[in-house]
Amino acid sequence: MEDNLAVEQEPSGGRRGRGDRGGAAARRAARTGGGAGPQLTYIKRQIPLYEVLNEEGIALIEANADTVLEEIGIEFRDDAEALALWKDAGADVKGERVHFPRGLPRSLLKTAPSVFTQHARNPERSVQIGGDATVFAPVYGPPFVRDLEGDRRYATIEDFRNFVKLAYMAPSIHHSGGTVCEPVDVPVNKRHLDMVLAHMTLSDKPFMGSVTAPERAEDTVAMARILFGDEFVDQNTVIINLINANSPMVFDETMLGAAKVYARANQATIITPFILAGAMSPVTVAGTLTQVLAEVLAGAAFTQLVRPGAPVLFGTFASSISMQSGAPTFGTPEPSLVSYGAAQLARRLGLPFRTGGSLCASKVPDAQAAYESANTLNSTLLAGTNFVLHSAGWLEGGLASCYEKFMMDVDQLGMAQKLAAGVDLSENGQAMDAIREVGPGSHYLGCSHTQANFQTAFYRSSIADNNSFEQWQAEGEKTAPQRANELARRWLDSYEAPPLDPGIRDGLNDFVSRKKESMPDAFT
Amino acid sequence: MEDNLAVEQEPSGGRRGRGDRGGAAARRAARTGGGAGPQLTYIKRQIPLYEVLNEEGIALIEANADTVLEEIGIEFRDDAEALALWKDAGADVKGERVHFPRGLPRSLLKTAPSVFTQHARNPERSVQIGGDATVFAPVYGPPFVRDLEGDRRYATIEDFRNFVKLAYMAPSIHHSGGTVCEPVDVPVNKRHLDMVLAHMTLSDKPFMGSVTAPERAEDTVAMARILFGDEFVDQNTVIINLINANSPMVFDETMLGAAKVYARANQATIITPFILAGAMSPVTVAGTLTQVLAEVLAGAAFTQLVRPGAPVLFGTFASSISMQSGAPTFGTPEPSLVSYGAAQLARRLGLPFRTGGSLCASKVPDAQAAYESANTLNSTLLAGTNFVLHSAGWLEGGLASCYEKFMMDVDQLGMAQKLAAGVDLSENGQAMDAIREVGPGSHYLGCSHTQANFQTAFYRSSIADNNSFEQWQAEGEKTAPQRANELARRWLDSYEAPPLDPGIRDGLNDFVSRKKESMPDAFT
Repeated sequence: MEDNLAVEQEPSGGRRGRGDRGGAAARRAARTGGGAGPQLTYIKRQIPLYEVLNEEGIALIEANADTVLEEIGIEFRDDAEALALWKDAGADVKGERVHFPRGLPRSLLKTAPSVFTQHARNPERSVQIGGDATVFAPVYGPPFVRDLEGDRRYATIEDFRNFVKLAYMAPSIHHSGGTVCEPVDVPVNKRHLDMVLAHMTLSDKPFMGSVTAPERAEDTVAMARILFGDEFVDQNTVIINLINANSPMVFDETMLGAAKVYARANQATIITPFILAGAMSPVTVAGTLTQVLAEVLAGAAFTQLVRPGAPVLFGTFASSISMQSGAPTFGTPEPSLVSYGAAQLARRLGLPFRTGGSLCASKVPDAQAAYESANTLNSTLLAGTNFVLHSAGWLEGGLASCYEKFMMDVDQLGMAQKLAAGVDLSENGQAMDAIREVGPGSHYLGCSHTQANFQTAFYRSSIADNNSFEQWQAEGEKTAPQRANELARRWLDSYEAPPLDPGIRDGLNDFVSRKKESMPDAFT
Repeated sequence: MEDNLAVEQEPSGGRRGRGDRGGAAARRAARTGGGAGPQLTYIKRQIPLYEVLNEEGIALIEANADTVLEEIGIEFRDDAEALALWKDAGADVKGERVHFPRGLPRSLLKTAPSVFTQHARNPERSVQIGGDATVFAPVYGPPFVRDLEGDRRYATIEDFRNFVKLAYMAPSIHHSGGTVCEPVDVPVNKRHLDMVLAHMTLSDKPFMGSVTAPERAEDTVAMARILFGDEFVDQNTVIINLINANSPMVFDETMLGAAKVYARANQATIITPFILAGAMSPVTVAGTLTQVLAEVLAGAAFTQLVRPGAPVLFGTFASSISMQSGAPTFGTPEPSLVSYGAAQLARRLGLPFRTGGSLCASKVPDAQAAYESANTLNSTLLAGTNFVLHSAGWLEGGLASCYEKFMMDVDQLGMAQKLAAGVDLSENGQAMDAIREVGPGSHYLGCSHTQANFQTAFYRSSIADNNSFEQWQAEGEKTAPQRANELARRWLDSYEAPPLDPGIRDGLNDFVSRKKESMPDAFT
C-alpha cells in the first residue's frame, strides 16, 4: 500500500502525463519524499464563493467608480497612440488625462472573454482561466533569494531555473509563472530571453511573458511562435502577462507598450492596480475598491480598443501600509476584504479575476510568514480567484524568493486543492455502512469503509510533523523550514526535464543567441 | 498622536472599564508594548456566513443522523438515572443503548435557547453566546507548557495563573476559559479549586467550570454562588462547561454526571463530540457530520430532560488522523469542511455553535504551527462559530500550552475581530473626497481623509515585523516567537488584578481552604 500512497503524493516528473500512476513515478516519489497531493491541471472549485458585499454595496462602488472615471479620469502617460484610441472611442481626452462617459469602459469590455484557455506546450497542462477554475502560479518579481544555505543574496539565473524546476514538479502548482526571481547576474536587457527560455524548456506548464519593455514583449511572442508555431499563437492564448497600473489612476508608457504588444497578438493581460492602501489608494476598503475598479475598467477596456476579444483579467494586488513606518503589511484583514470585494466586482464585469497568493512581510519563513500567507491564501481561494500569482515562495514583501517558503506554500496549495473539492455527498461519502459496522464505543481504524478510502480520505502534508513530541525530538527537533529545506534539495536532485522536440529547442536557443549578440550588455 | 495610537492597542488592565481611554491606559500600553487591537466584549459579526452544504446536503445529513439515532442508538454508560430519563421521554432503551424515535431529540431541544448571556462578574465583560456573536476563549486542557525559557515541561499552577492573566489582558480574548493548562503540581482532586479560584480572582472575564467529576462541578457552582450570589446564579448563566461525547456514540458517567449538575443549576453545557476522524468517526466529511449531529442531538436533548431551558451548545472538535501513524492532524482541509458543515447543522437546530480555535500539531511555534492555526481560525470565523475554545496558546495537538504561541494567536484574533466588522460603506468609508483630493499620480499619505482615519484604518499587529530587511537585521534578526516572548514578559510584568470585593475574596478563599482540608491529596 505504501507504494500507492507515494504515487498519490509524488512530485510531477517530466516524462509522463497525468495518467501515469505506475512504478517509475512511485520510485521517483519515494526518492524525493513525496509532494503535496495529486497533480491537478487546475482547480475546478466545487465550494461556494464567499462574498462580503451585498447588492447595494456593489452597486454603490460601481457608481462611485463610474464617477471617478468621468469626473477625475485616468492618465495614459507618454503614449499618443493610446490617447488617440480613447479619443476615437468617444472619451474626453484633456492632455494625458482621459475622462470616460459613464458606461463606456464597461461597454467596451463586452468583447472580452469571461473564460479562456491558456495553452501549455503539453496539452495536458493547458489551464482554464475564469469561471470555476483556480490556477496557482509561483512568486513573481523578487530581486533577492533566501537560499538553501539560509543566506539572503541577489538572485541569479541559476535560482531562476531552480524555481522553474520546483514549480514544474509541484503537484499543486499549475503554472510556471513569470519572473520567479530577478536573475540579477544577467544583463538587464537580456534577462527576459533567459527567463522565457527557462520556462519554455525546463517546464511544460503555461508561463508568463516579459513586460519590462515593448521589444521584450515582442521577443516573448516571437519565442512563443517558435515553440507553438505561428498559426497556433495567432489563434490561441499561450502567454499571460502582468500589466500593473501605476496607482493612483495612471498607466505608464512601459506597461501600455507591453499591453499593446500582447493584446495585438491575442495574448492575455492582467490589468492590476498594485495597491499599498493608504499610499496608493484611500485607507478604507470601499475607497480602495472604487479606485481599483476605475483603474481596471480603464486599463482592461484599453486592451479591447487595441484588439477586441483579446483576453484580459481583472487584477488586484492588495496590501495595506503600516501607518507608523509606511512599510507594506500582509495577511491583515483589510486586504482580505479588498480581495473578496474585488472578486465580486470582477464577476459583475464578466472578467476572470486575479489576486492574492501566499503573501507576507516576514524576513524569514517563520510563524509570521505562515500566519500572513495562510490568511491571504484562504481569502484568495474563497473569493473565487481565477489566477493566483505569488502562490508559493514569496517572502519579505516580495523582495525575496525563498526556497523553504516555496516548499511550505506548495503544501498549503495542496490543501487548498482538497478544500476546493468540497463535501462528497455520494453514498460512499455518507459512510452509513461504516457507522453501522462500527457502532458505539468501537473505532473506525480497521473498518472496511476506512480501508477502502484509506488513500484519498485525508490530505497528507509533505511538510507537517504530526508525530509525538518524543519522536520529533528523537528525529532532531526539526522545524517546518528545515523539513522544507530537505524536501527542496531532494526535488532538485531528482528533477528531470520534460521532453522537447530538438528542432524547437535549437530554434529557441538560436533565437536567444542571435538576440543577445545583437545587443551590448546593459546592467541598469 | 502616538499616545492615542497606543491606547487603541493597549492590553486590558484591571482597574478600568471599556470606556477608559485616558492617560493611565496609554502609559500602561507604552510600558507593555501594545496589544492586539481594541478590547471588544465579544465580536458581533457583520460579515456573511460561509456555508459548504446546500439545502439538499443538509437534509441528507439530518436524515442520516436520525437513522443513526433510531437504528444504531447512543450508549449512556453507567448512569441509571440518564437511562430512566430517556425511557420516560419515550426512547427505546435496551441495556445502556438508547434508540430514539425519529424527531424526539429535535423536539426536546425546542426548549433550549438559541442565544443567551453568560454573565461575568464585571457586567461589561458579560458575553452573548449564539446568534451573530463570536466569543474567543483560550486553550483548554494541556498537561504541558512550552515556557518562556523555551523548555517543554509539566504545567504548574503558576503557569495556569499566568495564562489566566494573559487572557485577561488580551484585548481580543473575551473569555477566561477553563483548564488553560493542567496544574500538575496540585493534587488531582484539588486542582479544580485552585483553577476556578484563579479565574474568579485574577480575571473578570467569564469562565468555565470543572467537569472531571460531578462533585467538582458542584464545587464550581458553589463558588459561583459566593461570587455572584445565590439568587443571581439560579436565575442566570455564569458558568459554561465542556461535556465531551466519548465518540463514537457513547456518553460516559463522568461527563453525564457533570452535565446533570450544570444543567440542573441552569448553567451552560457544550456537548462536543471530540472527533479524530478516521478513528472516532468515518474518514469522510459527510459521515463525520452525520455522527456528530447524532451525538449532539442525543447529548444536548439529554440536558433538556434534566432541566428544560438550560443553555446548551452544539459543539464539535474536528481533527483528522494521519493514516500513516494514527497521529492527529490539524489545519487540513477536512476539519475545515466539518466545521463549516457542523455550523450549518447547529443553526438548523437553533443551538449556539462551538468549534475550531487556533489548532496545530507542531511541537514548536514555527511556520507549521502558524499555517495550521490560521487555517483553523479562518474557517472557525467564517463558519459563524459562537464559542471558540482553544483560540490562543494551543500547541502540539493540545498537549502543550505555549506562551509564545499564545501571544501570536492573540494577535491573529485581533485580526479576526477586524475582519468580522466587514466593509464600511458609509460616506467616510467610500472615501470619494480622498480620491478627488489626491487625483492621478499623487499619493494618499498626507491627504485629509487619511489623516482623519489614521488611527483605525488598518489593523496594527503586535507581533509582525514589517520593517526593511536591513532594519530587521540591525534589530537582531528576531523571529515572530522571539517578539512574542518579549511581549508576554512585558504583559506579565505589568499585570494588575481587577478589583474584587474583599468579603467575596475571603469567602472564596475560605471555601477552597475548607474543601482542601477535607480531602487527602490524590495524584491520580
